[in-house]
Amino acid sequence: MDNSIFVGTKPFMNYVTAVVMQFTTKNANEIVIKARGKFISRAVDIAEVATKRFLNGQVAVKAILIDSEEFQNKEGKQVRVSTIEITLGRTD
Amino acid sequence: MDNSIFVGTKPFMNYVTAVVMQFTTKNANEIVIKARGKFISRAVDIAEVATKRFLNGQVAVKAILIDSEEFQNKEGKQVRVSTIEITLGRTD
Repeated sequence: MDNSIFVGTKPFMNYVTAVVMQFTTKNANEIVIKARGKFISRAVDIAEVATKRFLNGQVAVKAILIDSEEFQNKEGKQVRVSTIEITLGRTD
Repeated sequence: MDNSIFVGTKPFMNYVTAVVMQFTTKNANEIVIKARGKFISRAVDIAEVATKRFLNGQVAVKAILIDSEEFQNKEGKQVRVSTIEITLGRTD
């Protein structure tokens, strides 16, 4: 079972629901919210809303990692993009 | 001495330079990059570029905290905004 949720352009609540469902109906112990570039702010919003509004007292942020990825864009130019991984886990 | 840098709408490199200067000319041991809402992605970019391009091997991410703030907007509505605090410190 892969417990990663990759944040993109879908409606905000889709991601929050996916996170909450993993803990409530799929009994996950940990899930990782991943995002790149401008979606990083969104990943933080999703983690905050999921843990504080929906899973308050049951699930909390366990770890946050930031990093960079380098890749070539369409023009062949080397580009750097930031990444984030927010791990949520049960508080037990 | 307050070692916080609050990320807003100034040019990107202003923030990177401010971070690098704190470590190189002001001899800071730790600085905290703070941002709210959509500026969170920018705060991560600033931390990544400062630590990996300019201060590689000397300064690294020590801690990342995310949280929420609630406030009333102009229409009197209660609004939630996410926040981030990225602490950078000298390695060794």
